[in-house]
Amino acid sequence: MQKLTLLFIFCFSGYLLQAQNQDEATIKKIFDQELTNGKSYQMLEYLATKIGARLSGSPGAAAAVDWTRHTMLDFADSVWLQPVKVPHWVRGAQEIGKVTNSRKRGTIDMSICALGGSVGTGAAGVTANVVEVKNFDELKQLGQRNIQGKIVFFNRPMDATKINTFTAYSGAVDQRASGPSEAAKYGAVGAIIRSMGSTLEDYPHTGGLRYAPNIPQIPAVAISTKDAELLSRLLKEERDLQFYFETHCQTFPDAPSFNVIGEIKGSLHPEEIIVVSGHLDSWDLSQGAHDDGAGCVQAMEVIRLFKAIGYKPLRTIRAVMYMNEENGLRGGIEYAKQSELKKEKHLAAMESDRGGFTPRGFTMSAPENVVAKVKAWKPLLEPFGLTDFDQQGGGADIGPLANQNVPLFGFLPDSQRYFNYHHTKEDTFDKVNQRELEFGAAAMAALTYLIDQHGL
Amino acid sequence: MQKLTLLFIFCFSGYLLQAQNQDEATIKKIFDQELTNGKSYQMLEYLATKIGARLSGSPGAAAAVDWTRHTMLDFADSVWLQPVKVPHWVRGAQEIGKVTNSRKRGTIDMSICALGGSVGTGAAGVTANVVEVKNFDELKQLGQRNIQGKIVFFNRPMDATKINTFTAYSGAVDQRASGPSEAAKYGAVGAIIRSMGSTLEDYPHTGGLRYAPNIPQIPAVAISTKDAELLSRLLKEERDLQFYFETHCQTFPDAPSFNVIGEIKGSLHPEEIIVVSGHLDSWDLSQGAHDDGAGCVQAMEVIRLFKAIGYKPLRTIRAVMYMNEENGLRGGIEYAKQSELKKEKHLAAMESDRGGFTPRGFTMSAPENVVAKVKAWKPLLEPFGLTDFDQQGGGADIGPLANQNVPLFGFLPDSQRYFNYHHTKEDTFDKVNQRELEFGAAAMAALTYLIDQHGL
Repeated sequence: MQKLTLLFIFCFSGYLLQAQNQDEATIKKIFDQELTNGKSYQMLEYLATKIGARLSGSPGAAAAVDWTRHTMLDFADSVWLQPVKVPHWVRGAQEIGKVTNSRKRGTIDMSICALGGSVGTGAAGVTANVVEVKNFDELKQLGQRNIQGKIVFFNRPMDATKINTFTAYSGAVDQRASGPSEAAKYGAVGAIIRSMGSTLEDYPHTGGLRYAPNIPQIPAVAISTKDAELLSRLLKEERDLQFYFETHCQTFPDAPSFNVIGEIKGSLHPEEIIVVSGHLDSWDLSQGAHDDGAGCVQAMEVIRLFKAIGYKPLRTIRAVMYMNEENGLRGGIEYAKQSELKKEKHLAAMESDRGGFTPRGFTMSAPENVVAKVKAWKPLLEPFGLTDFDQQGGGADIGPLANQNVPLFGFLPDSQRYFNYHHTKEDTFDKVNQRELEFGAAAMAALTYLIDQHGL
Repeated sequence: MQKLTLLFIFCFSGYLLQAQNQDEATIKKIFDQELTNGKSYQMLEYLATKIGARLSGSPGAAAAVDWTRHTMLDFADSVWLQPVKVPHWVRGAQEIGKVTNSRKRGTIDMSICALGGSVGTGAAGVTANVVEVKNFDELKQLGQRNIQGKIVFFNRPMDATKINTFTAYSGAVDQRASGPSEAAKYGAVGAIIRSMGSTLEDYPHTGGLRYAPNIPQIPAVAISTKDAELLSRLLKEERDLQFYFETHCQTFPDAPSFNVIGEIKGSLHPEEIIVVSGHLDSWDLSQGAHDDGAGCVQAMEVIRLFKAIGYKPLRTIRAVMYMNEENGLRGGIEYAKQSELKKEKHLAAMESDRGGFTPRGFTMSAPENVVAKVKAWKPLLEPFGLTDFDQQGGGADIGPLANQNVPLFGFLPDSQRYFNYHHTKEDTFDKVNQRELEFGAAAMAALTYLIDQHGL
């Protein structure tokens, strides 16, 4: 009996060792393939430079849907479009922003842009005095008496001492999302939001706002971090400054669009689905190279890589390119809804939406035992610089799958550069480094492989 | 007695805990200060964009010496220049490189540049057939019979599957350093070296060659990785291709120059010196922003930060900006020589010469007990993303201090982008991210602080 136990232990250890060697070898093959013959960079070049901006409802978004479908036909077993109605907001003519009456300096042009979803001012523009605040408490204290008829200038910077720039973003973005409606509660006629940028830059960052129900919708713009500093200094010297801004944005009826989905059918458990994903839409000011062209091509590259190295997954691997993450999340919501209706079983969902930078690890939003299982794979991933598995989180588009208890994984690249490009004209293909992008694609493929092989 | 022991343990634990809290607090202060009020980025902007290229012996190098001395006077206790004679090589007029006789395509311009230290061809240029090799073994097998009178084209790429790009560089750079002399042994009349670049680019990477003694010195150029691929393809189709290149470089007598040194005197052990360093010279094609302007401003920033947060070091902290790392290492050698003559005691030497990218950790070249001591500090550094302390190594300029048994530390940033810029026209200020640079400066200051507080 003892001998049998020993024999069993011996064989089982051998089996484990073999499995580990097999994992090591496949993961090495994935990275080698991507770093020598990867296609993610080439795909991103097309998406970012040939198609470019692709806000929901725009011709660019339609072209991106078409291109993604065609591209995936080359390496997926099947590709289909999932219809989804999306908000249709259009920026219109170039915005104007300026201080009009500085006694010291006359007219001073400022670098602004309308926030996504904002109403426009039309050709008449908005002219008013400016009240600067750092947060909603200050706003409340000032009250209607001080705010009525004014433009509220939200000027709380992202906290530069936060190591993870996404933490700094989370700590400041309430100004952009809710600031306009908060200001309107007290009778403001417009809102200027300090851009969500990590450092001092001379271009503005757009991004979505959310108008609260039953509150007047006032026009809102982002101002570059440099001009936010300048405006703040000017206001300290001249409290009666007048600011003028003019925006021409409009919201049209919801438009038809699509999530684009491609998959490789699982050979052993085709009913178990692993999602790898990014979002196809981008803001209108940029090429959407990091946000989220990078995530899209990385997700597509996972299934292309499996084909390229001849790996036949046990489970179904599904690359989902969601539409409308930026200003509605309609794609992510629709995907989860359809999945529930079809009673699909998702083993895991992974999202890349933090830029195409050097991988540091993955965030997880999953039960403890799943987290523990994934952390046990660290020795297989650490040689590739993937060391951070300690942060909570999944991603915006896969978020709605949480209701179906799907373990969620967020690709976690280095965060230092992201908020220099995010939602700006600077988010262009030349800001993406080929090796960094490829590393991310390979990292996602490696984790997908491990989940596919060992389940969760 | 037992009670006394317990009391001792209790007090000692309290002391340790307090020390750790103190370390945590100071390190946080260092990062906070640098990320909100750092000056490294501003210093680098001046060095890279106002002074620019600064090859040893050039007017740029002299201006950099002057600027560095002046800059450090603002925050160092003392600043001085250490004289050192440096090689003086000048590129001269723009180089020309082309295939002259393709039957299919006629004349094809190629993107080349002379290697540092190469002899020039003069106006006559060099025209010859091309023999492509991947390594010195192939060259030897071809022998004089096949090489005599030809141009040897070394075309072994950096291995893209290496995770650390410096490993890939080490595996390929023998072609640049020794290739010309190796080729000349068999009668070659010129050498073309595939650029040391991580990916396909259309600009060449210069860098130093070393002519072997008693071998004819033949002119040598680097070719862009894209054109290396093209030339290789063309040679497969047309073996009798002629290549023409023209370079106008010259070597002048050694020139006078300086290491620039600034220090804060230690309050308790002034005789124990901790060096933080970078190299002030750069190649002539670039602004030397990452290589090694970043390292210089980070080293200066360590002592500026200590002043800014009011930290008075126990040991002497010395910022050394070496001259001539790129083509002679004369500064590093001279510094070690003078240190030995003066019987100075160096507790540690740290170097930053891998670019101003997000920190990953530090390399070490030190006795086992020192390595163990530093690794015990990991919990204090990991919250800032500094997780890699496992690689061997110090740095080129501090290398000569190894003879005096000085523990050496190399700042280790993420390596993925470095060899897209290294030694090229692309190594400009706009390729440096402010937060990444600042993180590096703070990381170096944090480790310097720990060494200063706890010794080694």
